Amino acid sequence: MSNSTAPMNGAESLVRTLLESGVDTCFANPGTSEMHFVAALDRVPGMRCVLGLFEGVVTGAADGYARIADRPAATLLHCGPGLANGLANLHNARRANSPVINIIGDHATWHRQYDTPLTTDVEGWARPVSVWTRTATEAGAVGAAAAAAIQAACAAPGGVASLVLPSDASWNTGGQVAAALPAIPAPRVSPDVVHKVARTLRSGRPSLLLLAGRALAQDALADAHRIAAATGAQLLCPVQNARIPRGRGRFEIERMPYFGDAARARLAGIADIILVGAPAPANFFAYPGKPSRPCPDDATIHVLARPEEDLADALRRLAEELAAPPLAPPEIAPVAELGTGPLTSAAVAQSLSALLPEQAIVVDEAATFGHAFYPGTRHAAPHDWLQNTGGAIGHGLPMALGAAVAAPGRRVIALQADGSAMYTPQALWSMARERLDVTVVILANRKYAILQHELASVGATAGATAMSMLDIGNPDLDWVQIATGMGVEAAKAETMERFNELFAMANHRPGPFLIELVV
Amino acid sequence: MSNSTAPMNGAESLVRTLLESGVDTCFANPGTSEMHFVAALDRVPGMRCVLGLFEGVVTGAADGYARIADRPAATLLHCGPGLANGLANLHNARRANSPVINIIGDHATWHRQYDTPLTTDVEGWARPVSVWTRTATEAGAVGAAAAAAIQAACAAPGGVASLVLPSDASWNTGGQVAAALPAIPAPRVSPDVVHKVARTLRSGRPSLLLLAGRALAQDALADAHRIAAATGAQLLCPVQNARIPRGRGRFEIERMPYFGDAARARLAGIADIILVGAPAPANFFAYPGKPSRPCPDDATIHVLARPEEDLADALRRLAEELAAPPLAPPEIAPVAELGTGPLTSAAVAQSLSALLPEQAIVVDEAATFGHAFYPGTRHAAPHDWLQNTGGAIGHGLPMALGAAVAAPGRRVIALQADGSAMYTPQALWSMARERLDVTVVILANRKYAILQHELASVGATAGATAMSMLDIGNPDLDWVQIATGMGVEAAKAETMERFNELFAMANHRPGPFLIELVV
Repeated sequence: MSNSTAPMNGAESLVRTLLESGVDTCFANPGTSEMHFVAALDRVPGMRCVLGLFEGVVTGAADGYARIADRPAATLLHCGPGLANGLANLHNARRANSPVINIIGDHATWHRQYDTPLTTDVEGWARPVSVWTRTATEAGAVGAAAAAAIQAACAAPGGVASLVLPSDASWNTGGQVAAALPAIPAPRVSPDVVHKVARTLRSGRPSLLLLAGRALAQDALADAHRIAAATGAQLLCPVQNARIPRGRGRFEIERMPYFGDAARARLAGIADIILVGAPAPANFFAYPGKPSRPCPDDATIHVLARPEEDLADALRRLAEELAAPPLAPPEIAPVAELGTGPLTSAAVAQSLSALLPEQAIVVDEAATFGHAFYPGTRHAAPHDWLQNTGGAIGHGLPMALGAAVAAPGRRVIALQADGSAMYTPQALWSMARERLDVTVVILANRKYAILQHELASVGATAGATAMSMLDIGNPDLDWVQIATGMGVEAAKAETMERFNELFAMANHRPGPFLIELVV
Repeated sequence: MSNSTAPMNGAESLVRTLLESGVDTCFANPGTSEMHFVAALDRVPGMRCVLGLFEGVVTGAADGYARIADRPAATLLHCGPGLANGLANLHNARRANSPVINIIGDHATWHRQYDTPLTTDVEGWARPVSVWTRTATEAGAVGAAAAAAIQAACAAPGGVASLVLPSDASWNTGGQVAAALPAIPAPRVSPDVVHKVARTLRSGRPSLLLLAGRALAQDALADAHRIAAATGAQLLCPVQNARIPRGRGRFEIERMPYFGDAARARLAGIADIILVGAPAPANFFAYPGKPSRPCPDDATIHVLARPEEDLADALRRLAEELAAPPLAPPEIAPVAELGTGPLTSAAVAQSLSALLPEQAIVVDEAATFGHAFYPGTRHAAPHDWLQNTGGAIGHGLPMALGAAVAAPGRRVIALQADGSAMYTPQALWSMARERLDVTVVILANRKYAILQHELASVGATAGATAMSMLDIGNPDLDWVQIATGMGVEAAKAETMERFNELFAMANHRPGPFLIELVV
C-alpha cells in the first residue's frame, strides 16, 4: 500500500483519480506500456478489473456498463493497434452517447521518435469516436487529465473521452490525484421553443414526437404519452436505442421501422415531426433511386430538444404548457403462453415474453430473425432493452458482459445473431471468468440473412460466388463447442419445446449459459 | 455475363480492373454498401473470394497472401467500423511493407450528409496505415482509382493502398476498366553511396550489416554473406521480419534480440552499423532509465539503401566493389532427431526441425514460449519464416490463412501463442471452409507470459489483481473445442511424444488441423 509521504507515480494518480470520481470498474486488455497502471491496481484498493481477451470486448463492455450503471467505466487499451481493435464498439458507444473513460497506453514520450513497430497515430484514430481526446505528457498532468476526461464523458448527452497515457507519464513520480470536477448540467431548452412546439401540436395537423436517449426513461416517456393523449401526436423512437426501460406496467414506445420503404409508409401523412433528442429520420443505408429521408416530402421538422439538452425537463414543460392531464400507468396484461410449434421469430418472442425474468436486461443484436422480438415482448416482465446503436456488429456479447458487471442480481439476456456473434466471441470467456448471470441465445441461421435481403434491395442479382459471401455455413459453426471451449456451459435447441426448457433453466442458474437456437 | 455493349457499373469496372492488373484474390467481409461489388463477382469470372467472419482476419490474410504471392490481394471491408476492425493487421501489413489493395465500401456520396449510424471518418482511419488513400466519388473514376491503387501498393517497398468506394460509385453505370499501370521500379542507390560504404567496411573497424525486407531474399543474402566473408562484417536482421527464406542449404541470418539489454550486449563493440532496408536499431518498448537505442553510444550509423531502394542491387554492387569472392552454399546438416523429454521450447524446436515439410511456410506468432524456434530450425528443410512485424497481436492465424491461399501445395505451419490467437480465432473457420493445408500449433501457456516478464522489466511489482490481468487461465481455454466448433479438426498434446505424433500426422493430411500444445 502506498502512503501519503511516498512519491506517487502517474499511474497511481490515475487510479486514485478515477476512484475519486466514482469510476471503479475497468475493462482491460493491457500490454507492456500499461504495466505501471496494472501494478497500481494492487496498491490502490477499490478498482474492479475485468480482463477481455480482445479489445472489442473491452470497449463494448464499457458501453454496456455505462448504459446500465448510468456512469462510466474505464477501458485500458494497448497502444494504437489496441485502440484500433476497440474502435468499432467505441463507434457504437459514441452513437449511444455512452460515457466511457477510454485509456490508451502508449510509448514513452521520448521513445516515439524512433518509430518502433507499435508506433502509430493514437490520437488520430481516437478522435472520430471521442468527445474529448488528450495525451497526458507528464506524470503531474495525469490526474487532472483523468478528472477532465470524466467530466467531459459525463456531460450530456455523454460520450467517449480518450486519454492517451505515455508509459513515462505512468511510471514517473509526481502524480497528483485530482478531485472530481463538478458535473455539467444539461442545459434547459428555452421557454420560446417549448411554446412554439406546443403551438404546433395544437394546430391539429398529424404530428409525431421522435424520442431518443433520456427521453425514453419512464418519467420522460410518461410525459410524452400525456402529450400524445392530449394532442393526438404519435410517438416513435429510432430503430436502434441505447436503453429502453419497458415491459408490463410501463409506458411503451414503438420503434421506427429499419427499412426505408417501411419507414416511409409508417410516416405517411405526418405533417410535423418534433425531435426530442433524436436526429431527423434518415434511412440506415442509401438505395438506388430512393430518398435518404423516409419523411413525407412536405413534413416540417421541429426541434424540441437537442441530445445535449435536458430532454425530460423539456417534455415535462411541454406537457404542462399543453395542460395535458397525467395518465395512469398502462394496464397489466396476463403473462403470455409459451411459444410452441414451428421455430419462428414470433414463437420465440412469445416465449421470451413468458419467461423473461423480472428486471432482466435484454441485449438485442438479434438482427434478421429477431424482427418479432421487440413488439412481441411488450407485456413481458419489466426489463431494459439495449441495442446496437452504431451499426458496427459484434456489439451484443461485449455489451451483455458490461451490463452484467454493472447489475449484479439482474439477469442479462443476449439475443444474438450468429454472424454478429462471431466478431467478438471472446466475450464469452470473460463472462465465464466473472461468473456473470448472462443467458446467451445464439440465433443460428448460418447466413448473413440481412445481406441476402440487401442484395435484392439494391437491385443486384447474385450467383454462386456472391451467395458464398453471404452464407456462413459450410462449415456450420458449432456454438456449443465454441462456448464450452471458452468456459461457458451450452446446449443446442432445434425445437420450441427444447428452447423453452433450456431458456427457463438457464435464467435460474448462476453464471453464464449459452443456447444455440438453430433457426 | 456482361458483354461489351451493356453499360457497366462502377463495381464491375473495379473487379475487371483488379483482374487486368493481376489482382485475382479478394479477402472479404462485405456489408450492405458492398452488395454491388459482391454481385459483380458473379458476372466477372476469375476472382477468388475468401470470406472472413471478422475484418482482422481479412486484412491479416491479405498481408500473408502478399508476402508469399509477392503481389497484392484485395480486401473488401464494410464502412468505417469494418475498416476499424481491420486496422490492427493493416498496421502489421504496413510494417511488413506488404502490398494490399484495401477496398472499403461506404455510404452513397449523397447519403453521408445524414450522418446515419455507420457514418464515420473512413479516410481518416485509413491514412495512418496507408501509402495511398482515395475515395472514388463516381462510377467513371473507380477503374482508374483501382489501377492507381495497385501501382501505389506495389511501388517499393510496398504498402497498403486504401480505396474508399461509396455505394453509388458502385451501382451507377459509367464504369471504365483501367489498364494496368506500369510498375514503378525501385531506384538504385548512387555509386557514391556504395563507394563510401565499401570504404567504411575496408577500415577494419567492427561493423554490422543490418538487413531487412528484400535484402533477406536468398540472392541478396548470398551477396551479404560474400561481403561479410570478405570484410569480417557481421550480419543481422531485425527482430520481426516479413519473410525470411531459410533452412538447410540456404544462407542464414541471425535476428536481433527482442529485449533491449540483450540487443545492447549483442551490438557491443560494433563501430559501424550499415542499414540495408532496415531502420536504425531501436528497442520495441522504452524502459525507465534505459536508452531506446541498443547500439553502442559511439557507433556510427550508415545507410547503404533505404527500404524503397533496390536492396539486392545495392548488395550486389557493394560485393563487387569489395571484390568479394562468391561463396558456396552452406553445407547441409543431417536431419535433426525428434525432440523428447520435457516439453521445452528447445525440444519443440528440435521436432520442428526434424518434421518441417519441404517448402513449408512458417508463421511465427509463438511469442514467449517460441524463443528457441527460430535458431533451432536453422537446418530444417527449406522454408519461409513469416513474423508479426507491427506488434499488433492476432496476426498469426489470419496470416497463415492468406499464405495458404497464396501457395497451394505448400504446408503452412502456424506457431501460435494462445493469448494472441484469441484476437482472431475466426481465421480457423475460413481455413476449414477453404480446406487449406494449415497446421496450427497453439502454444497454450494460459498466460500473457510476455507481460509477466515486462511487469518485472519496468520495475513494477504485482499482487493478485495485477496478475489476474496477465493470466488467461480461469477458465482455461479449450482449443480443441474452439477449433472443432469452427470446423477444424483438432487434438491436444501434453507430451513431446504426442506432439511429434500429431505434428507428423497433421502435416501429411489435406486440410487444416490444430494441435493444442499445453506448455
